[in-house]
Amino acid sequence: MTPQPNPEVGAAVKAADRAHVFHSWSAQELIDPLAVAGAEGSYFWDYDGRRYLDFTSGLVYTNIGYQHPKVVAAIQEQAARMTTFAPAFAVEARSEAARLIAERTPGDLDKIFFTNGGADAVEHAVRMARLHTGRPKVLSAYRSYHGGTQQAVNITGDPRRWASDSGTAGVVHFWAPFPYRSRFYAETEEQECARALEHLETTIAFEGPSTIAAIILETIPGTAGIMTPPAGYLAGVRELCDTYGIVFVLDEVMAGFGRTGKWFAADLYDVVPDLMTFAKGVNSGYVPLGGVAISGAIAETFGKRPYPGGLTYSGHPLACAAAVATIDVMAEEGVVENAARLGESVVGPGLRELAERHPCVGDVRGVGMFWALELVRDRETREPLVPYNAAGEANAPMAAFAAAAKEGGVWPFVNMNRTHVVPPCNASEAELKEGLAVLDAALSVADGYVG
Amino acid sequence: MTPQPNPEVGAAVKAADRAHVFHSWSAQELIDPLAVAGAEGSYFWDYDGRRYLDFTSGLVYTNIGYQHPKVVAAIQEQAARMTTFAPAFAVEARSEAARLIAERTPGDLDKIFFTNGGADAVEHAVRMARLHTGRPKVLSAYRSYHGGTQQAVNITGDPRRWASDSGTAGVVHFWAPFPYRSRFYAETEEQECARALEHLETTIAFEGPSTIAAIILETIPGTAGIMTPPAGYLAGVRELCDTYGIVFVLDEVMAGFGRTGKWFAADLYDVVPDLMTFAKGVNSGYVPLGGVAISGAIAETFGKRPYPGGLTYSGHPLACAAAVATIDVMAEEGVVENAARLGESVVGPGLRELAERHPCVGDVRGVGMFWALELVRDRETREPLVPYNAAGEANAPMAAFAAAAKEGGVWPFVNMNRTHVVPPCNASEAELKEGLAVLDAALSVADGYVG
Repeated sequence: MTPQPNPEVGAAVKAADRAHVFHSWSAQELIDPLAVAGAEGSYFWDYDGRRYLDFTSGLVYTNIGYQHPKVVAAIQEQAARMTTFAPAFAVEARSEAARLIAERTPGDLDKIFFTNGGADAVEHAVRMARLHTGRPKVLSAYRSYHGGTQQAVNITGDPRRWASDSGTAGVVHFWAPFPYRSRFYAETEEQECARALEHLETTIAFEGPSTIAAIILETIPGTAGIMTPPAGYLAGVRELCDTYGIVFVLDEVMAGFGRTGKWFAADLYDVVPDLMTFAKGVNSGYVPLGGVAISGAIAETFGKRPYPGGLTYSGHPLACAAAVATIDVMAEEGVVENAARLGESVVGPGLRELAERHPCVGDVRGVGMFWALELVRDRETREPLVPYNAAGEANAPMAAFAAAAKEGGVWPFVNMNRTHVVPPCNASEAELKEGLAVLDAALSVADGYVG
Repeated sequence: MTPQPNPEVGAAVKAADRAHVFHSWSAQELIDPLAVAGAEGSYFWDYDGRRYLDFTSGLVYTNIGYQHPKVVAAIQEQAARMTTFAPAFAVEARSEAARLIAERTPGDLDKIFFTNGGADAVEHAVRMARLHTGRPKVLSAYRSYHGGTQQAVNITGDPRRWASDSGTAGVVHFWAPFPYRSRFYAETEEQECARALEHLETTIAFEGPSTIAAIILETIPGTAGIMTPPAGYLAGVRELCDTYGIVFVLDEVMAGFGRTGKWFAADLYDVVPDLMTFAKGVNSGYVPLGGVAISGAIAETFGKRPYPGGLTYSGHPLACAAAVATIDVMAEEGVVENAARLGESVVGPGLRELAERHPCVGDVRGVGMFWALELVRDRETREPLVPYNAAGEANAPMAAFAAAAKEGGVWPFVNMNRTHVVPPCNASEAELKEGLAVLDAALSVADGYVG
């Protein structure tokens, strides 16, 4: 855990990266990726020996932090026994991972279809819903992210969708509740909830209930802003789905596996979907893995009729062994409880205290280890600190905030005018307080752009 | 490598599988997955101590066989150092894997975008082509498979596409050459090639060249039947793409990384695509990994303009470390050369000899460790031994063939009326001869359905 400077290796790693690695979501010539030498627990370090507290959990997936020794050991043991085996067979790690996941999923979501990640989990959930209902359309929310493959990104409600929007059929976007920026002119959470449900029901009516296969929502939207839904909203959506014979899909790729202080965010709201997608936290991304948890009724649809979908690495033994070990570690070490407890006692109060002192903070929302600060130019008008989807100079205030956090030794999660506080779910109180102190300084930089 | 019987553990693995694992491409209540206890080299075994020679390489991906000790050790070492890290950073395993792959890809395909598998590689290749050209359509072949996610399965030309065909825009299927079952009434390979190119050019003309972003082909189609293209066909497609400004995508997910006795099947035909997808053999599927190799011109399109696509596990360190070790092992141990040599000296001659003696064999085709036997009721009419996409009773002859092979200790690859001979690329001469002898007996069973 003591980073050793090794700038020459770092330069070689960087040079090969720049020559040959094509990066996600990036203009390849305009990026300057930091070369990372190592990582452990809540920290990572570069080749100059500079250490960062990771307030991003990677891309919100290392829920148990980096290099947990028990999970590393489990991967090594599984590698020695059986790295890989084709999906048509029964293998121990796959059976055990499915059993442990099914034990924790809400309701009767007891059949697990394994994928490689969240995007293909969403792709398959949508296909299952369409074939189960025989209906074509999928309703999803603006301010959402559901993955980068074609169908998943079409369903997505953030600007990452735009370039892939042509040629899409059967996806309709609606507005989900967001009290801080209400689309419904609501003045209270209760009003926001009621109006958002009314908006959704009217949309269903005008799209035609008999045309709608699924409504898909992130239980708590992640990258789009961690908008915890008002009490009653998800239960209301469940009711609408029951009324109109629509499959209710909850996307728990980011919110699942402890992030919210529950195994699944659905547990916070006592709601049971028909399909639930997961990835990331299922094994802290130590080996690529995702999946769909499937209700009894939908599994039955594919009881005697083949499900027309699959993939070579479905239920990959190494990935499944990492999931088994991760779930065991989370249970043994009380990782989910830690997220709930320190979210309530440290992160929530700490962020609200920062909001009081920093005029740039417009809103604080979240739960567990899943929090967003919304930065604004003006608390009254709620004008975002940077415009929607800003780039370059227009994004300078957020860039300055991020640079200040990194300077202070915290790697921040920044999206548009927000910073998300999404540390590992097993981060300690001391680490969280260390991070909050650095955010304090960085928010002072952002304050300079207020008004 | 001596399988220990342990039927009780096997029963528990099977029971948990049946209770909780939802399997790819299957009617869940009609399958009976074999519980597999272990695997090494070219063999795997069940919990009853029964051992099988794997003539499928899993799903044609364990090109170096199971549990190669050097790759297992590399995975264990990488797990100890850095299991995972987010894609926006430069990390050693990712840089090195990209460098080693770019070193081997044809032409200037020097930038590597990593995905989790073949399907999302195809998804992203298509997106890159559409954005690079500003055109909407993709042309792909009947008798093809390109992956199970929505866009990839729409592009696919086999029946796995059908259930997901509604709501697709911009995919057009054409006929690629297949001398044994010519769609062009050709009597020679030369004629088949010329007419297939004429068919493609006419299709381009009628679809509108300015509407076509990409033509995508498996260099040698895999699951669809291992139809090695006639000399000149791929060069002809390359020329058509150049003439009409169309991006040429070669899908090497199954054919790549040694399967054909070359690093890439494209090398067999001296053709350089603009984008090339890979997965499977890149690390023998020891950790889920796929990707797209990108030409200089297309990479430049996303030099100053962001590429709108990505995924959490892009360039996953553990998967990349497995790729580095696999490529090193393949180079050190001459695995590609082994596939070429034994394909030409053992498998090809062996299968042709079987074809002479067994009236059920209509055609033998392939190269390296990538062969198909086409089974027929009648060699003259070439009527397939089972109808296209047969199931249940209609598929009995192929089921009987497969059962006989398993009874003899060989796990066969069976698709429709074909068996593919796709053992690991490092299989030994003795293993290959052992397998051919078992196929001999199984083909005698299939002979019973002839005429």
